[in-house]
Amino acid sequence: MKVRLADIAREAAVSEATVSRVLNGKPGVTEETRRLVVSVAARLGRDTSSVYAHGEDIVGILAPDLTNPIFPQMISAIDDELAARGMSSMIVARAFSVERERDALESLVAAGACGLIVLSGHHANALSPVDHYRLLLERGVRLAYINGRRENLSGTFISVDETYAVSAAVEHLAALGHRSVGLAVGDEHTYPVREKTRAFNELIERGNTVAKQIAFTDFSHEGGFQAALELVRRGCTGILCGSDVMALGVIEGAASMGLSVPNDISVVGFDDIAFGRYTSPALTTIRQPVPVIARAAVNAVIATDSEDRRAPRADILVRPELVVRGSTAPPAC
Amino acid sequence: MKVRLADIAREAAVSEATVSRVLNGKPGVTEETRRLVVSVAARLGRDTSSVYAHGEDIVGILAPDLTNPIFPQMISAIDDELAARGMSSMIVARAFSVERERDALESLVAAGACGLIVLSGHHANALSPVDHYRLLLERGVRLAYINGRRENLSGTFISVDETYAVSAAVEHLAALGHRSVGLAVGDEHTYPVREKTRAFNELIERGNTVAKQIAFTDFSHEGGFQAALELVRRGCTGILCGSDVMALGVIEGAASMGLSVPNDISVVGFDDIAFGRYTSPALTTIRQPVPVIARAAVNAVIATDSEDRRAPRADILVRPELVVRGSTAPPAC
Repeated sequence: MKVRLADIAREAAVSEATVSRVLNGKPGVTEETRRLVVSVAARLGRDTSSVYAHGEDIVGILAPDLTNPIFPQMISAIDDELAARGMSSMIVARAFSVERERDALESLVAAGACGLIVLSGHHANALSPVDHYRLLLERGVRLAYINGRRENLSGTFISVDETYAVSAAVEHLAALGHRSVGLAVGDEHTYPVREKTRAFNELIERGNTVAKQIAFTDFSHEGGFQAALELVRRGCTGILCGSDVMALGVIEGAASMGLSVPNDISVVGFDDIAFGRYTSPALTTIRQPVPVIARAAVNAVIATDSEDRRAPRADILVRPELVVRGSTAPPAC
Repeated sequence: MKVRLADIAREAAVSEATVSRVLNGKPGVTEETRRLVVSVAARLGRDTSSVYAHGEDIVGILAPDLTNPIFPQMISAIDDELAARGMSSMIVARAFSVERERDALESLVAAGACGLIVLSGHHANALSPVDHYRLLLERGVRLAYINGRRENLSGTFISVDETYAVSAAVEHLAALGHRSVGLAVGDEHTYPVREKTRAFNELIERGNTVAKQIAFTDFSHEGGFQAALELVRRGCTGILCGSDVMALGVIEGAASMGLSVPNDISVVGFDDIAFGRYTSPALTTIRQPVPVIARAAVNAVIATDSEDRRAPRADILVRPELVVRGSTAPPAC
């Protein structure tokens, strides 16, 4: 169903001729009106991706790994935000080493990116150097970092409130009757793991009656499998995971020991990947507010004031949400 | 576990000094030896992604939509192939209109891409113009197109054998006892849909005793849901889908009519996304041979002979595989 010019014109309170000029990339329209029309047209479902001339308004995205669906979900949400502004993205994945990350970011800037959004990059690893970000910032490139935080570095940091996330998950498991809860996470030098373990330890120390165990493996399916073997052996009946992909590995690890989820072991994921509601059992998880994160990241890297492109330091903390499905239940005994 | 220089040297039959020079990007090594060492090092598990200087050897990838996991799986397999050659990729997603696709491909070339891999792009749509590919080919850019075919266009076309795929799925359903089988697919102007419907119709006409129904919706979850309502109403007990994402929609559509999979309705997906084995029920599906497709695409766009970069026309047909899991069973009555 094609959205008509008249609908867009009425909604944006401009003439049909103006809508036509904007959608066909013609001059004679102020930038303010152009953005208004593009935003209304996109909201009504019209494809606005060809409004702007090519090469303009590209944002670079760095992603660690596209096979974990949370990263494609983040990228798609960022692309939605960009499309509503007549912009688009260029993506580099799996630039794992610091050198590759630096080269990838330089390539994106060379390709015309006005700003860069870094998903779980080296900014999130306490042991990694960050000079390659500083060099970009000094050249006026805007940077937004998702799920990681570093002191003494400019740019906009957008992170999930891990304290709230861990608290919501542990309280859910405790309310179901679990008395020994495990945390399954990856590399302890990364920001989300440090924050989750800090929050987990503080929560238990604050008089919570639940016993705690932590397994550090990695954020993969295999990492979840290994963590399940370790945490179940240490007596846990409820397991909070650092990702939904890990949670699927925990379910398989439990099954390999003859235990079923949620009858014997309860599992809480993290991310809320789209497939979590189709798994068997459907995943109880902590939902990252992906659209909110994407909007904050795009707003941070779009230069709104061309005279001062050096972004100051900004920290944005977004609150996740507990989504209860089928992978949690009262413990068997 | 770090792979030692000595292991790589022994395996590649070169000195440790040579391995060190290659892995640190130092000169004094022939390109042939460099590629050998990189390939052996990558096979042994060493990160070789920083071997080559930045900006060199980038391949551009165009993907329609990252939220369908088959595309991230394809991209990751392509990145694996590129990493083994010391190369990397730059990706643009969701360039849906012809204009956006053209602009995205131009941006990738401007960013230094020596070759372009197009996943399910406008080459696959019989109604779309393809002059933007011709202009790139004339400038010496190498192009590989995945899952689509167009006459009178140069480059390498890599497609799944849809005739084999449809035949394997229908025979599986017929062997289980299904007598009325439906095909749920997207836009009939795209190559995979045209090929599937042609194969489906021919198969039935060749005396197969199974009755056929086709629903044209779209390749999304919602498209699957709608197709289920339509095909079940028309009496189908087995449904072959154009994608696994559609298959998940078919399962939900059947559930909305009070029918369960596989007890009342059998469902066969297409793609074999990684999450298909965790769904409830686990998906019986047609597996695209992703690593084979990725290797063929990378080989096609890497310039091996700098004097003749104009690739001729090449057609590669790859055979998929039926993977039987829990979403198919004998019909209820």
